[in-house]
Amino acid sequence: MDPPTQISHLALDIGGTLVKLVYFSSNGSEEESRNGCSVVKGKLCFAKFETRKIDDCLDFIRFNILHHSGVQHQNGAVHDYLSVKATGGGAFKFADLFKEKLGILFDKEDEMHSLVGGVNFLLKTVPREAFTYLDGQKDFVNIDHNDLYPYLLVNIGSGVSMIKVDGDGKYERISGTSLGGGTFLGLGKLLTKCKSFDELLELSHHGNNRVIDMLVGDIYGGTDYSKIGLSSTAIASSFGKPISDGKELEDYQPEDVARSLLRMISNNIGQIAYLNALRFGLKRIFFGGFFIRGLEYTMDTISVAVHFWSRGEAKAMFLRHEGFLGALGAFTSYKTHSTNDSKPHHHTVQRAILNCSGDSFRHIPVTSNLNDSETIECSINLV
Amino acid sequence: MDPPTQISHLALDIGGTLVKLVYFSSNGSEEESRNGCSVVKGKLCFAKFETRKIDDCLDFIRFNILHHSGVQHQNGAVHDYLSVKATGGGAFKFADLFKEKLGILFDKEDEMHSLVGGVNFLLKTVPREAFTYLDGQKDFVNIDHNDLYPYLLVNIGSGVSMIKVDGDGKYERISGTSLGGGTFLGLGKLLTKCKSFDELLELSHHGNNRVIDMLVGDIYGGTDYSKIGLSSTAIASSFGKPISDGKELEDYQPEDVARSLLRMISNNIGQIAYLNALRFGLKRIFFGGFFIRGLEYTMDTISVAVHFWSRGEAKAMFLRHEGFLGALGAFTSYKTHSTNDSKPHHHTVQRAILNCSGDSFRHIPVTSNLNDSETIECSINLV
Repeated sequence: MDPPTQISHLALDIGGTLVKLVYFSSNGSEEESRNGCSVVKGKLCFAKFETRKIDDCLDFIRFNILHHSGVQHQNGAVHDYLSVKATGGGAFKFADLFKEKLGILFDKEDEMHSLVGGVNFLLKTVPREAFTYLDGQKDFVNIDHNDLYPYLLVNIGSGVSMIKVDGDGKYERISGTSLGGGTFLGLGKLLTKCKSFDELLELSHHGNNRVIDMLVGDIYGGTDYSKIGLSSTAIASSFGKPISDGKELEDYQPEDVARSLLRMISNNIGQIAYLNALRFGLKRIFFGGFFIRGLEYTMDTISVAVHFWSRGEAKAMFLRHEGFLGALGAFTSYKTHSTNDSKPHHHTVQRAILNCSGDSFRHIPVTSNLNDSETIECSINLV
Repeated sequence: MDPPTQISHLALDIGGTLVKLVYFSSNGSEEESRNGCSVVKGKLCFAKFETRKIDDCLDFIRFNILHHSGVQHQNGAVHDYLSVKATGGGAFKFADLFKEKLGILFDKEDEMHSLVGGVNFLLKTVPREAFTYLDGQKDFVNIDHNDLYPYLLVNIGSGVSMIKVDGDGKYERISGTSLGGGTFLGLGKLLTKCKSFDELLELSHHGNNRVIDMLVGDIYGGTDYSKIGLSSTAIASSFGKPISDGKELEDYQPEDVARSLLRMISNNIGQIAYLNALRFGLKRIFFGGFFIRGLEYTMDTISVAVHFWSRGEAKAMFLRHEGFLGALGAFTSYKTHSTNDSKPHHHTVQRAILNCSGDSFRHIPVTSNLNDSETIECSINLV
């Protein structure tokens, strides 16, 4: 029989659409490391919930995490408060709810700070984390730690934040756009009646945007506008066809609507990201956030947009743990803060410091599409 | 009884959504100008049609223009071909149709060249053409002809073109976006079932975007994210609310949908325009195209976007004849080309050269909302 699993070091990133969780899971057995410290080996686990179904998240934490922690009695009464790192707007919005229902006090981390911390953590410690995607070709990028900065981080959540990163904890939010994952899902729900992000993405996979987008060739009578480099198949006007084809919403295939929408949002983000990278001479743009989901068409559209507008000068890169950047950043902040914290919290949280050195992380098997529950093997030092 | 009206010098700009017409109308009586030339005084008239209803445009030209010109017999047979300036993609797409049905041969002018020509013509010859609009305040801008260039021209048609203008005929299309007027109307039709641009704009006038857009305060539980300058009422995610509020399309007011859509498109164009102005150090951005329609909310959103992103450095300006830039540019190109044209076309077209000097244009009365048929008084020299 396997030894019982111990879970500790929970961190949350509560956005407008999704709650992202990162937590450390191990069998609890301590080993001695080379420098004489005690080490617990285990893995970082990931989970996500819809923000509108926050109760599912509370239940998950109650039954999978707190019942291991000793914070909660079996009758549900809280006899001690557990301090947990939390980021995103929901760290403010749901603070009272988590305190009341679970006895969890949010130790709030700034949203941008967490995003940057999460990306830097991944790029420095997890091999084969970053990759390019163009023309169906996925290529992992070797990150030179001495030549990592500056870069542009584009986090596509419900909305989009664009952050210039100059070093560890050195960053500035320079731009953003309200046309993000929330726009894709919100408009997608209204237009296709689909219920979830996954369903909408699946739809888009089978669609053809040319049914709904007005192309240059539609305006020019089949020819291109070569003088300014616009081919006949370039999109002149997203969703422009319904103006003239006499069709109503019901006459379109939901697949085609979803495809046009995905293309519109992805292309727009790629363009605005490139324009911002250009302002500061940034050659590398990392795209993260749950919008991407490792979806090939999305990555291809973003890559093409960056490539097209920059004439090949700038490069779009993606991250295998793209959806958990903020949560990972909040998680890794235990390292720097916990020793300064003198309040008596639960002992495993209080005593443990995450070991973020590269050797602790095993090679992650490459999958074409990230699984939300994909774990990162790691160890924590007990101090 | 008024003398019979003579119409000549027709020019067309046929876009993906609208056909724009400019033509010269006079009573035909010649006067002698100070330098001894014969001058015909009259006015520039404007008309527009939906591209999908191109037959309405053909009828208009047939009955209001050609029957004055002597090109067409009363039985409809063409006994001579009339060469007419035309621009936009439709100058290619509909060339055969105009030749066959009206005996009109398109003398094609490049689309970007015409746009720039139209704007330069307006800025140099029509007083009180350009204005700023911010916080409900409309201020006309005095254009110093010696300090006009460079500027950024953002033409919002079905799609959006962004052109850096450095002088007469000196320009480069530096960017654009497929999220334009066609996206507004196309998505608007699918979402609200309204039939026309005017109807959709009227709807948007009465709507509230906060019903559908996800605001920063919605994510942060009512507070703002002041650290990065995002107030609680800033839009975090356009159309983000349908994700979590359990509503379907039918549950929303079409007014609110139209408002969110207008805000999304306007704000996005304003942002991309600003980022492009920044690349080239352009302080003045002129917005044109039929999308704007003198609508205060649209202009305010664009102005606020440019002001917000540029921190007050760049200025959004609008044009009173915004919808007819390309058509005006094609129209004014008669001046430079007609004397080189040796083919025997209809005599009024062949012989006339438009007098574009400033003095010929009367002050146009200021209206809060441009009327499509608003005319510009002008004269043509007979050579």
